[in-house]
Amino acid sequence: MSIINNSATDVEQGADFLPKFDAAGLLTAVVIDSESRGVLMVAFMDQEAVDRTIETGFAHFHSRSRGKLWMKGETSGNRLRVLKISVDCDQDALVLLCKPAGPTCHTGASSCFYRELVDGRLERAAD
Amino acid sequence: MSIINNSATDVEQGADFLPKFDAAGLLTAVVIDSESRGVLMVAFMDQEAVDRTIETGFAHFHSRSRGKLWMKGETSGNRLRVLKISVDCDQDALVLLCKPAGPTCHTGASSCFYRELVDGRLERAAD
Repeated sequence: MSIINNSATDVEQGADFLPKFDAAGLLTAVVIDSESRGVLMVAFMDQEAVDRTIETGFAHFHSRSRGKLWMKGETSGNRLRVLKISVDCDQDALVLLCKPAGPTCHTGASSCFYRELVDGRLERAAD
Repeated sequence: MSIINNSATDVEQGADFLPKFDAAGLLTAVVIDSESRGVLMVAFMDQEAVDRTIETGFAHFHSRSRGKLWMKGETSGNRLRVLKISVDCDQDALVLLCKPAGPTCHTGASSCFYRELVDGRLERAAD
């Protein structure tokens, strides 16, 4: 990968997809449910995960703990079909609008965000 | 800050708020508009940003480029009033449901996610 210095105008206003990865080679991906419009999960993508997601139409991420590419649902079957990818102003975060094949969270909850912070304690949110 | 090893069960199912910061001391925060329910922005929080957000009711973040705490809207006035904070399974990401005082993006767009990826190119999304 070559080092390219893109101007802020190119990055913010241009039509070129110029994903900006951090020092660890990652950007943030937020997965939104195409039906409920709620946030299902947050994960990280490297260039390979971005490429594989675009090629296959299924969400792929980079596992920081395992240090490798993974397709969401590769073992559980609960894949995320990507319907739309939105890009933020500085192109270091993506929003993936997805149709999930099943519960997204490994705990069995539909979303990983199943708790709310109330007076310093976590309370289970309505699923 | 002491090093505490919390069990996965405590972290995933418990009522204790045990935010998990990465090696850089950060976790991911996703800001959702309380009216449109769309994603407004994605940023990072350290312990100080989490504490200040809870104390003040306005979203604070940690700037990775400037290496310091900032309150969203501290110069523009476009603050984000936090109505609800949701926490994910492993407590390394937060969703902030917010009422924005004005456009969230520094470009003037209501959301930082004003472009969609279509056939490898970015197209302006409806604002």
